Amino acid sequence: MNIQEIIIKKRDKKELSKEEIEFFVQGYTKGTITDYQAAALIMAIYINGMNEQEIVDLTMAMANSGDRIDLSKLETAIVDKHSTGGVGDKITLIVSPLLASLGVPIAKMSGKGLGYTGGTIDKLQSIPGYRVEIEEEEFIQNIQKIGISLISQTKSIAPADKKIYALRDAISCTDHIALIASSIMSKKIASGADKIVLDVTVGSGAFMKEKESAEKLANIMIQIGKLAGKETVCILTNMNQPLGYAVGNSLEVIEAVQCLKGDLPNDVKEVVLEIGSYMLKLAGKGNNINENKEKLKKAIEDGSGFEKLKELVKNQGGDISYLEDMNKFKKAEYILPVISEKTGIVTKLDAEKIGTISCKLGAGREKKEDKIDESVRNCFK
Amino acid sequence: MNIQEIIIKKRDKKELSKEEIEFFVQGYTKGTITDYQAAALIMAIYINGMNEQEIVDLTMAMANSGDRIDLSKLETAIVDKHSTGGVGDKITLIVSPLLASLGVPIAKMSGKGLGYTGGTIDKLQSIPGYRVEIEEEEFIQNIQKIGISLISQTKSIAPADKKIYALRDAISCTDHIALIASSIMSKKIASGADKIVLDVTVGSGAFMKEKESAEKLANIMIQIGKLAGKETVCILTNMNQPLGYAVGNSLEVIEAVQCLKGDLPNDVKEVVLEIGSYMLKLAGKGNNINENKEKLKKAIEDGSGFEKLKELVKNQGGDISYLEDMNKFKKAEYILPVISEKTGIVTKLDAEKIGTISCKLGAGREKKEDKIDESVRNCFK
Repeated sequence: MNIQEIIIKKRDKKELSKEEIEFFVQGYTKGTITDYQAAALIMAIYINGMNEQEIVDLTMAMANSGDRIDLSKLETAIVDKHSTGGVGDKITLIVSPLLASLGVPIAKMSGKGLGYTGGTIDKLQSIPGYRVEIEEEEFIQNIQKIGISLISQTKSIAPADKKIYALRDAISCTDHIALIASSIMSKKIASGADKIVLDVTVGSGAFMKEKESAEKLANIMIQIGKLAGKETVCILTNMNQPLGYAVGNSLEVIEAVQCLKGDLPNDVKEVVLEIGSYMLKLAGKGNNINENKEKLKKAIEDGSGFEKLKELVKNQGGDISYLEDMNKFKKAEYILPVISEKTGIVTKLDAEKIGTISCKLGAGREKKEDKIDESVRNCFK
Repeated sequence: MNIQEIIIKKRDKKELSKEEIEFFVQGYTKGTITDYQAAALIMAIYINGMNEQEIVDLTMAMANSGDRIDLSKLETAIVDKHSTGGVGDKITLIVSPLLASLGVPIAKMSGKGLGYTGGTIDKLQSIPGYRVEIEEEEFIQNIQKIGISLISQTKSIAPADKKIYALRDAISCTDHIALIASSIMSKKIASGADKIVLDVTVGSGAFMKEKESAEKLANIMIQIGKLAGKETVCILTNMNQPLGYAVGNSLEVIEAVQCLKGDLPNDVKEVVLEIGSYMLKLAGKGNNINENKEKLKKAIEDGSGFEKLKELVKNQGGDISYLEDMNKFKKAEYILPVISEKTGIVTKLDAEKIGTISCKLGAGREKKEDKIDESVRNCFK
């Protein structure tokens, strides 16, 4: 087997075998296949596509390219959630402690933000002291101890995906359903999830601009989950406007705390209840979605979700006094109120534009290597 | 302008502008565009194609990527010939001295062989002493002095083509008409040709296996020539079987000498007369193809073609005693006659197979960096 022959097959719109896909993924991870050969193959995949079986094979090959987190010690099926990205998306910060407070163990590895979409890890890091990089052993101990741990995805998880993702970015091949689906699912599978709830965002602030392509992406990920033996549920959510009122790292932590204290904007509430109730269902905590939503509302009302968030932050070294007195969060140096010259109602806010501006202000990264500007913790509200 | 946007356009099957193509060719030559970005773009071009204007723009951008040989000192239109490659193709060795003996100046830069197709330069180098690498000034002086010079293409000719060609080889994108046409024509234009006769080979021993694709390639090259202001004629020739009886470097020189002495195999004769008569026509030495063929036959019969070959070899430092006594050429160490067990007539020889075996025996290169095995000068006869 050699890479040239594999390139020819995909160039000529033929199906790649499992062995060929593994040969490529392993060879590229090890460096025996060059960047330019990988680039040619990725472009051929982008243009000529992959069928379901090929996408599953690519996903599994990437999931197996590095360490796979073994969560069997937890002796329960682990339900993970993932969002395909959005502007102002603080759902993980809200739904994870809620679920943990309802007895569902949360073992979650999150990503950093890229482009105009934010990342949970960047948000958590705005809490002084919070450690996002911890070893697998401590991660598991945390969950055994308090039922929840939320950390940054380790470097050894799906290294093939990291390499291919960086290449896709350099050669303009990011927005392809087969490549997005395999990238997301490979990381979820490698990080030990048994069951997965996927929040597939649709709209101007999401990778999928149209409902049709979001549905296609959702169906492919459900199919990957099925073939990989991981029960997967997809929920399509609107991302034409930012989620909630706050965009920017610490501002979103503040809004998440307010949500857990019962003050939820309608759009955030809807997504939290939807995602959370399906997570409860997959965790075996109740098949009735409406009843599950009630359980979540109760965990908000009685403050147990907020207590769990504080427990999580404290357990990972974060200063919980910030969550108790949110005025402690550093404010933006310059605050510019934009006041309408007319009386009226704002009917639409373009999520992509707001995400892009907050990224440019320093709240996000344009390239993976970029650092978040520590002085820009606040962006929009 | 940036390379990512250019990749997106071609990925999405859109037309690239002249400026975009120049940006890519210049950037890749200078190294500001990476191999993997070029690979992605080349694959997108391979799959999604290029229209005539794009191919012309690519050709001219590659022709202008390095030095362009200025043959204006010769004060006459220079007619060049080029073959798209074949097995046993010694036409240049025969037709060039014939034309020069008829008063048509020959300023020819040839390539080395690659894969199963041989190269004129490798053949000439089997004559001890023959210098293939000489400077532009001496090249022009040679033509002024004896009317002919045959040298190796210099490194500064179309460096973009060299880089792109090597990349195409590594990513399985060699056999694409737009890429082949622009590669050939960029080198011809950069090496100073005013008028070009192209021998487009068709069959198992050629890059173009089918007549249809050969015709397509021919039409595109004629179109490029037209738009570049270089009159171009294409002749399709059969390459299902090796040309002539000999395959392998010194064996082909011997056969070329025999041809110039009047002993021409029918297939070689046909191609020599066809190509030669069109070259005479483009050089303004007669519009009647049949009359031109007679002139060529005469230059064979009266020995003036052979005399011109000896003059060329002598002028470039080669030992002409080898051409006068061809037994001097080193013979293969092992000669294995293959004798048929039955009486009959060989009706077909597969050119590609014979070319591949002679290449593997050491008469050719599998990769550009490979060296010709000096001990393997003979291959098939």
